[in-house]
Amino acid sequence: MCYYLDGTVNLYMRPIEAITVTVDLEAMKIIHFQDRLVVPVPKAAGTDYRESKQNPPFGPELKGITVVQPDGPSFTIDGSRVRWANWDFHLTFDARVGPIVSLASIYDTEKQEFRRVMYRGFVSELFVPYMDLTEEWYYRTFFDAGEYGYGLCAVPLEPLRDCPANAVYMGAFVAAQNGMPIEMPNVFCIFERNAGDVMWRHTETMIPPDLITEVRPDMSLVVRMVSTVGNYDYINDWEFKQIGSIKVTVGLTGLLEVRGSKYTHKDQIDEEVYGTLLAENTLGAYHDHFITYHLDLDVDGESNSFVKSKLETVKVTDQTSPRKSYWKVVSETAKTESDAKIKLGPDSAELLVVNPNKRTNMGNFVGYRLIPGSVASPLMTNDDYPQIRAAFTEYNVWVTPYNKSEKWAGGVYTDQSRGDDTLATWTSRNRRIENKDIVLWYTLGFHHVPYQEDFPLMPTISTGFELRPANFFEYNPVLKVKGPNNVRWPNCSVSSSGLN
Amino acid sequence: MCYYLDGTVNLYMRPIEAITVTVDLEAMKIIHFQDRLVVPVPKAAGTDYRESKQNPPFGPELKGITVVQPDGPSFTIDGSRVRWANWDFHLTFDARVGPIVSLASIYDTEKQEFRRVMYRGFVSELFVPYMDLTEEWYYRTFFDAGEYGYGLCAVPLEPLRDCPANAVYMGAFVAAQNGMPIEMPNVFCIFERNAGDVMWRHTETMIPPDLITEVRPDMSLVVRMVSTVGNYDYINDWEFKQIGSIKVTVGLTGLLEVRGSKYTHKDQIDEEVYGTLLAENTLGAYHDHFITYHLDLDVDGESNSFVKSKLETVKVTDQTSPRKSYWKVVSETAKTESDAKIKLGPDSAELLVVNPNKRTNMGNFVGYRLIPGSVASPLMTNDDYPQIRAAFTEYNVWVTPYNKSEKWAGGVYTDQSRGDDTLATWTSRNRRIENKDIVLWYTLGFHHVPYQEDFPLMPTISTGFELRPANFFEYNPVLKVKGPNNVRWPNCSVSSSGLN
Repeated sequence: MCYYLDGTVNLYMRPIEAITVTVDLEAMKIIHFQDRLVVPVPKAAGTDYRESKQNPPFGPELKGITVVQPDGPSFTIDGSRVRWANWDFHLTFDARVGPIVSLASIYDTEKQEFRRVMYRGFVSELFVPYMDLTEEWYYRTFFDAGEYGYGLCAVPLEPLRDCPANAVYMGAFVAAQNGMPIEMPNVFCIFERNAGDVMWRHTETMIPPDLITEVRPDMSLVVRMVSTVGNYDYINDWEFKQIGSIKVTVGLTGLLEVRGSKYTHKDQIDEEVYGTLLAENTLGAYHDHFITYHLDLDVDGESNSFVKSKLETVKVTDQTSPRKSYWKVVSETAKTESDAKIKLGPDSAELLVVNPNKRTNMGNFVGYRLIPGSVASPLMTNDDYPQIRAAFTEYNVWVTPYNKSEKWAGGVYTDQSRGDDTLATWTSRNRRIENKDIVLWYTLGFHHVPYQEDFPLMPTISTGFELRPANFFEYNPVLKVKGPNNVRWPNCSVSSSGLN
Repeated sequence: MCYYLDGTVNLYMRPIEAITVTVDLEAMKIIHFQDRLVVPVPKAAGTDYRESKQNPPFGPELKGITVVQPDGPSFTIDGSRVRWANWDFHLTFDARVGPIVSLASIYDTEKQEFRRVMYRGFVSELFVPYMDLTEEWYYRTFFDAGEYGYGLCAVPLEPLRDCPANAVYMGAFVAAQNGMPIEMPNVFCIFERNAGDVMWRHTETMIPPDLITEVRPDMSLVVRMVSTVGNYDYINDWEFKQIGSIKVTVGLTGLLEVRGSKYTHKDQIDEEVYGTLLAENTLGAYHDHFITYHLDLDVDGESNSFVKSKLETVKVTDQTSPRKSYWKVVSETAKTESDAKIKLGPDSAELLVVNPNKRTNMGNFVGYRLIPGSVASPLMTNDDYPQIRAAFTEYNVWVTPYNKSEKWAGGVYTDQSRGDDTLATWTSRNRRIENKDIVLWYTLGFHHVPYQEDFPLMPTISTGFELRPANFFEYNPVLKVKGPNNVRWPNCSVSSSGLN
């Protein structure tokens, strides 16, 4: 694929369409060249995103703002082990998938011990298919982890911009092609977030003359990595909350893949162009992002079960109540892998991983709940070759018995995959998953219809999911978290200075 | 309904079940008393949520953290008019619904003018039905705005806990029963949020030896009100983003409604109890929360249309491409109200309000997009009396032509409603909505299955939606936002002090 760099650093906005060059990377030789048709190259004007290249008028400037922790951070990092509030986990870097969170345990104040939540969690694969049939586009169905290395594409985080002032940075090492270690600086940042939200509160007005108000601000610990896979920048957050939740967020920003085109106005278009006209000669191609997480939960121990609690309408027909209906909870424990394949949709259900060997004092099985964010399912047909390779996106949820060879949802050798080594093929054995060491696989997604605001660089759009305790604790685990020592507005001598 | 206060302020955890007292509030007389059956009252122990009533062990304490704006806030408030970054809007208080955001416009740096986005937006109604058929519970199907006053139930926000250190507070006045004004202090707080997120970024590695990194941190302006309707605390945020988005979030916390019960262990239960056993003699009742927003968008002018852009799979059968499928966008403009009734589900669609009279230079209609968060639909049957009254929850999305009498989705006199004055009845006229001043109604919801973590007080759970520009601007409206003047870690003399 060829791009024209003149007049901009935003090469992705200047595709030289319909030229294909095939290179033998072993021999470093061009072995095929094709110039199929002539398409205008989009202009450079308006594509550069660097501040130094912008002309006035500029947007309104905001006054400085920062976060202050006068006594330092509340977390400690000891090698790869991170401890913060009630959490204790390991954070390591993997060239294929980036951050791996492992051995995540939470301190139970009641039981006075750490209890395991997750053995290991990471992004297993990403699938980014473009919806364009033309010769230079039909094959653009990327697997960002297996083909490029989601960790290898990690970029150095920019202090004070990618992460706030109170962030701590960590580097990583990867092996070069010659086997020598290469340091990647600042691939992770870790910081405490104080976003101004409320962890819990209540005001009681029913006991006059008292007015009881009890509020706990929300604090969390964020682990961030940014992976820039060519044009796209993925912002990956693992966020640990005192209430026991692990919240995973992925933000998409960076540059679209655009197609060069003869069109300069929508009214000229009378054919399928597979995208939105974003600027003159520039079509933002329709595409999807699916991100599949490997979540090896060990809820209070290794042996877990997957429970789907469906909310079902019950009709009342016997005149015992003035009501004609209500809903009840019908829980089903998945016996085998096929029971746990779920396409999320309008059906109302709670999805839980429980430990069937441990119960609360009340007799409820201890568990964690998956709360999905934005849900998307593939719109390509199942017999389409890229979709066969990405069959792991067919369901939003899968559960497998732990198997150390089943880490990569798209197969070990994704580049060469024909779809015979994916999560979909593994689960076709329909193994037993009840009361076993199980892995929860969750796929989130976006269908991306570009809009002009995405040109020449996209504002971040985010989604994610939450793993939240569900009868894991005997009662609210943050009831006994004291209110913070409020740091009052400090009297500061501040150095305000621009970076540029 | 009776509660026992002894030993706790958490009266909601000590229901005296099955006693019903009917009071004539005009005469201030008890006109009916019933003690239907004897049910154990749950214990007081473990229910109080005040810090002063907790015994050790306490959860881990975190070091102080705060936000600093050495040069002050970047917003101005002039009466009810708020200006921040590229936004200009009015904020007023309404006893029925709380915050009303009106005349929200955004500055277009390219066009050098403010452009209208929303004429008026507010919570129109809330519906909270409990799923319990027993005599003292079947009727608990609350309409929090129409029956209680979502604004009247606003509570004074606690500085440094409900809102961060950089927040500014506003009060409001309501009319007392005798017509005299009553001041409600601190009902709103307004603050700039710097949560450590990224507004946009890109790192370019493809132009060696340069490594280009350009990052803009995300800043937003939050308007918050907390409404405590009896047991539940709703945290309402309207958040304005520089990228042009209005993000609405509602967080649920406070106290559950629980039912007294003879049960002290799950294994004893062999009947339908309509809830989760949370503690001894304490059942957390299953229920729903539906929150319906009235969003009178005026996208770049009054006359707007509602467009549903469906993403449809196209099968490729003619061998023109190695691909067998792709998806395309099929846009339909709603002509009448019935075209715009939408139950959100697995169908992939983009929902837009566009101005059919204004186009970008590229010819796209200027628009805003509704991005839903957590979606829930009613599980009660349509012929159930409470659901007839709450028929406005039947669809997640409705669009009506503006009518000044159609503000309250559950009718003007909700208390007395029999379902003949709701959004559902208004739209049965099937009025024309194309290229008119239209109102978008959006209902978000939770089905709440309580877990033990929700006892005796629930950690906040949040959802919301986003209104995001979609071909409203010619290009990314924050491309020309300069990087912030980074406030470097300040040298502060800080007073750390606890509040208690």
